[in-house]
Amino acid sequence: MDELKNKGSSSLTLRWPYLIILGDTQELVDAKTGAGLVQWCPEKVAGQLRFDNCLVDLGVSDLSISEAIDRGVKSVVIGVAPTGGQINQRWICLLEEAAAAGLDIVSGLHCRLEDFSSLVAAAESSGARLVNVRTSADNLPIGTGLKRSGRRLLTVGTDCAIGKKYSALSITQCMKDRGINVDFRATGQTGIMITGEGVPIDTVMADFIAGASEVLSPTNSEDHWDIIEGQGSLFNPSYAGVSLGLLHGSQPDAIVVCHDPTREVIDTANHIPLPSVAECINLHLRTAKLTNPNVCCVGICVNTSGLDVEKGKSYLEELSAELGLPCVDPILDGCDAIVDKILTEFV
Amino acid sequence: MDELKNKGSSSLTLRWPYLIILGDTQELVDAKTGAGLVQWCPEKVAGQLRFDNCLVDLGVSDLSISEAIDRGVKSVVIGVAPTGGQINQRWICLLEEAAAAGLDIVSGLHCRLEDFSSLVAAAESSGARLVNVRTSADNLPIGTGLKRSGRRLLTVGTDCAIGKKYSALSITQCMKDRGINVDFRATGQTGIMITGEGVPIDTVMADFIAGASEVLSPTNSEDHWDIIEGQGSLFNPSYAGVSLGLLHGSQPDAIVVCHDPTREVIDTANHIPLPSVAECINLHLRTAKLTNPNVCCVGICVNTSGLDVEKGKSYLEELSAELGLPCVDPILDGCDAIVDKILTEFV
Repeated sequence: MDELKNKGSSSLTLRWPYLIILGDTQELVDAKTGAGLVQWCPEKVAGQLRFDNCLVDLGVSDLSISEAIDRGVKSVVIGVAPTGGQINQRWICLLEEAAAAGLDIVSGLHCRLEDFSSLVAAAESSGARLVNVRTSADNLPIGTGLKRSGRRLLTVGTDCAIGKKYSALSITQCMKDRGINVDFRATGQTGIMITGEGVPIDTVMADFIAGASEVLSPTNSEDHWDIIEGQGSLFNPSYAGVSLGLLHGSQPDAIVVCHDPTREVIDTANHIPLPSVAECINLHLRTAKLTNPNVCCVGICVNTSGLDVEKGKSYLEELSAELGLPCVDPILDGCDAIVDKILTEFV
Repeated sequence: MDELKNKGSSSLTLRWPYLIILGDTQELVDAKTGAGLVQWCPEKVAGQLRFDNCLVDLGVSDLSISEAIDRGVKSVVIGVAPTGGQINQRWICLLEEAAAAGLDIVSGLHCRLEDFSSLVAAAESSGARLVNVRTSADNLPIGTGLKRSGRRLLTVGTDCAIGKKYSALSITQCMKDRGINVDFRATGQTGIMITGEGVPIDTVMADFIAGASEVLSPTNSEDHWDIIEGQGSLFNPSYAGVSLGLLHGSQPDAIVVCHDPTREVIDTANHIPLPSVAECINLHLRTAKLTNPNVCCVGICVNTSGLDVEKGKSYLEELSAELGLPCVDPILDGCDAIVDKILTEFV
């Protein structure tokens, strides 16, 4: 635990390997956090635990709590919403067994683990932690706007839920493959479980958004890149405050805009049209300059899954010609073109 | 209490008349919340309670707790920071006496009243409330961006702490004097104490800033104006997220920019220069258009106290000529020129 404390308590830090609890999950879409862990950090996943009536299989080993302990598992991860939305007695018994055996319980649920007194008692008996990745620390600082060493890239979007996490993970992986000194910085629950640490930025008290974002990507060596998972959108009227605080605190040297050409209106406000990519770049650069006057845009990540293959390709080509920037579908193309641009801009 | 509940529990609601507790305050600057109450809502203030060694006098009646009760006082207000920053035993005894007698305790302190078990017991015995105006409700909605009827004006600024509350109060008073149907909407602790209700916007969880701002100025009659107290600044790297969420949720028809011509750098980030008033107007209108395409700027409130009288006057004249907008020092000139502009723009 000592090395965890040294990392600073205002950023969540998780312990792995993980055992992913699937319980009685019936649909893969309900297990997307678990599926994301298997995709992005298979090295952290020791296995899955499924009840008899579970219909989802993540393709990893089925383990009981005791088998998981034998394999060195440190945390059980609840990466699904239990059927019906509420956590039931069968789940509680399982989590108690894990907590009593010393495993941390990592939850992305809306309900708080601390509300189950038997679970609290089990955790206290062994020293296990109950970690709610939707809850932020209460010792966050006010943002300073002061420049930190190291390089930072933030994924932003024309709307929320438009590929900012996936794009950041894909760029991180691509940079790692080229031997670049890089870390993914997580701001949402799935991202935090994948990377094992981070700040759930949308749960931070409003005054501390920028300060929490500064904590998220601390001073680093000059050649180091933080690839920061964006949240919300400056063009989303529900969440733009989160996005602006994250933008100012991240002080990005580079932004990547995420977009879906088939989405016509804002996700949480259907009366508001999506902005153009050019307008999105422009407003982000204008506001980001407050804390980093040298910020630039290095590419666009487009979800073309709503277009047929040829239309998707021509859309990317036309957008790239319009903007003079690499435009990719990270799922189909990867992010090599964007990383090439980064290496050209920042030498 | 029933009418309080009907107003909705996601906005704080206070009960008056108030007894302002000054305790052992040594300097007027430490009693600025109390002084603000006497200036802006003298009709809500029944008196002050001062210890023998108090050096501040707000010019209202000195009352004991029992005298205050005789005069119908409903709440005692802690509008000062106790000497040393911590609340001491003498304060606690006084607050217990008030709570046991059924008076609400309204606190702007950083420490939470609920942490004093004897005070909690006293309040429970009488049904009094312990109200911390720095704490926001936990049942706030996500912002919708949907248009609400009624008119809204938001004060914004080239920086934080630059006159947004004073300007909003002054505009409200000026509109009231002309018989306009108007309410001041408070977003900070002093404003909430003055008006008796509001949302401490900078303590709201990040995802709910815009939603809380929608709650703050609900649907109203077409001829009604909400004058909303701004917070932070889009140009302040510590607090811009709060400001943008408040801007989007307020959906202002009109903004008033607050400025101090002698301030050269941002209050919490001295390496960042203050923007020009023109740039401040431009960015606010651009971002505000997301939830109200018809937003316009109706004037500038300038704190000219750092200039000599003649220079102050010429500064306001030059700025007004540059922008084509009324520019006033609300303390010296009042806000009649701005209200004239509002009545011209919105007929």
